[in-house]
Amino acid sequence: MYTSGKPRAKPHCFLASLGMKQEGSLRVLVKGVTDLEPGDHVLPVFTGECKECRHCKSEESNMCDLLRINTDRGVMLNDGKSRFSIRGQPIYHFVGTSTFSEYTVVHVGCLAKINPAAPLDKVCVLSCGISTGLGATLNVAKPKKGSSVAIFGLGAVGLAAAEGARISGASRIIGVDLNASRFNEAKKFGVTEFVNPKDHDKPVHEVIAEMTNGGVDRSVECTGSVSAMISAFECVHDGWGVAVLVGVPNKDDAFKTHPMNVLNERTLKGTFFGNYKPRSDIPSVVEKYMNKVASIPVNQSLPRRIIVSISVDLKQSVYEISQNIH
Amino acid sequence: MYTSGKPRAKPHCFLASLGMKQEGSLRVLVKGVTDLEPGDHVLPVFTGECKECRHCKSEESNMCDLLRINTDRGVMLNDGKSRFSIRGQPIYHFVGTSTFSEYTVVHVGCLAKINPAAPLDKVCVLSCGISTGLGATLNVAKPKKGSSVAIFGLGAVGLAAAEGARISGASRIIGVDLNASRFNEAKKFGVTEFVNPKDHDKPVHEVIAEMTNGGVDRSVECTGSVSAMISAFECVHDGWGVAVLVGVPNKDDAFKTHPMNVLNERTLKGTFFGNYKPRSDIPSVVEKYMNKVASIPVNQSLPRRIIVSISVDLKQSVYEISQNIH
Repeated sequence: MYTSGKPRAKPHCFLASLGMKQEGSLRVLVKGVTDLEPGDHVLPVFTGECKECRHCKSEESNMCDLLRINTDRGVMLNDGKSRFSIRGQPIYHFVGTSTFSEYTVVHVGCLAKINPAAPLDKVCVLSCGISTGLGATLNVAKPKKGSSVAIFGLGAVGLAAAEGARISGASRIIGVDLNASRFNEAKKFGVTEFVNPKDHDKPVHEVIAEMTNGGVDRSVECTGSVSAMISAFECVHDGWGVAVLVGVPNKDDAFKTHPMNVLNERTLKGTFFGNYKPRSDIPSVVEKYMNKVASIPVNQSLPRRIIVSISVDLKQSVYEISQNIH
Repeated sequence: MYTSGKPRAKPHCFLASLGMKQEGSLRVLVKGVTDLEPGDHVLPVFTGECKECRHCKSEESNMCDLLRINTDRGVMLNDGKSRFSIRGQPIYHFVGTSTFSEYTVVHVGCLAKINPAAPLDKVCVLSCGISTGLGATLNVAKPKKGSSVAIFGLGAVGLAAAEGARISGASRIIGVDLNASRFNEAKKFGVTEFVNPKDHDKPVHEVIAEMTNGGVDRSVECTGSVSAMISAFECVHDGWGVAVLVGVPNKDDAFKTHPMNVLNERTLKGTFFGNYKPRSDIPSVVEKYMNKVASIPVNQSLPRRIIVSISVDLKQSVYEISQNIH
């Protein structure tokens, strides 16, 4: 949805059970899983948190060594096999979730247990792009109260990033998009000014520098376009500006800038899933929505429900479960 | 000395009174200067701190709008004129200090008042490269105790950066240099391991990743070579790695990397003068040396002394002083 076409399964995983954002209640539990119970409400997440690796133990990282997104894997970790099949042929998993199916098997490390009162048809989007955008601002860019923030790309991820800037108390939130029809919706998420690069003869980072007496305090790039990434970096103020990259680039892209742009005390950071650890942090993002601290920039309810079964860790067998869902 | 040939005066400032690292005691005071007295010991700094602009008021920046390094200016700010002349022709100032002369005129914002007990022939180097390297590590890279740090370039700036890593309690400090003769000296400043890129067939960032199970926690680049900058960035660990650029690049250089290297939660930062504010912070760096918290990686004493006179701020006249030093 937000990274359409980019985290795709490789050819050898082509026949895959797609879907990465859904919610569900647990139907089946497997021996060895101790922190969840049948009936728990969970969000399956395309990345994971084993809680044991260096990344999971680091305060700074959420890039779990065991369960970070892997579009090539397509199978369960414990036995290297898929839990889906059709006419005897395996159908591969998709980024560990395969949530378009009615039943699926998900590694316990990819399930965030959430408040059972949360409306599942709404909060399901918190398992990917919305948390990514929100966390990019709240956890990584960290704008101060009264600061200026530029958001590149006003899709759902960008709107969530703007919402993070609004929550942080930014006084100027400049939305940048090539599609002017997005500007009205963006106002609901705190965007105060708009820049359409098509309306200007000069580079967008120069436009923003002129608007802000030298550059914004923070920027968040949510398009995946490498030229937008470079602009997002070059539009932050020297001395203190921080740019955060969120969008997923193409394979052959190159981020390129003059080193003096860095030496003049700008910071370039990247984030994956808004630096949220799926199991530890996503429940609190759901609470933010429940307590109306944060809004979700997706109006539609998602009507389909899936029932999630949990796979066990590497040492356990899951054969008996896989029989239920073929 | 450390940035030899790079911050050079432009042709129109060619006849310049050179020198940027010295110390002195004040000879002449000018009306309007309130925080210094005749006899104070000061370090003249190639950049400055007006204490009034947005950068000076920011906790994060030291890039004073009024007094940051400007190799093209060559004159005093208040009247746009030089204080040096020969046979009626002006000799331009060099980066606001011109400390190779016996007497000079320096803006009060470029003078750091230091402990009068500090040995001037030693601490003079704290007004440029040594503080730059030390601050790059202590103020910007901020390695945690027990962490790993790579230092690219083991000249004086790099050794000071290594010293910063030692003070921070880094357990592995990997020095990278093309000149193996620097390795012995580097051990005195905390470097524990050495990598000479010439000794390896693979890129140095891969060598370091193999040595450190995925990358160092922090890196500091002190060469000014753009390829070293890119290696310094790509050798830090995903999830938490921070690379700090210090060296001054060439005019046409381009920093280039795949955006995924950023998105995988690496941070790229740049620093100018180690993020130290000259007047507010350099006195405490001198204290670090006095209290043996930090060592200075320059053995020689600098024998020449200069007597510094202070110029006043933009609103004041300094003609009467300039008469003294022609």
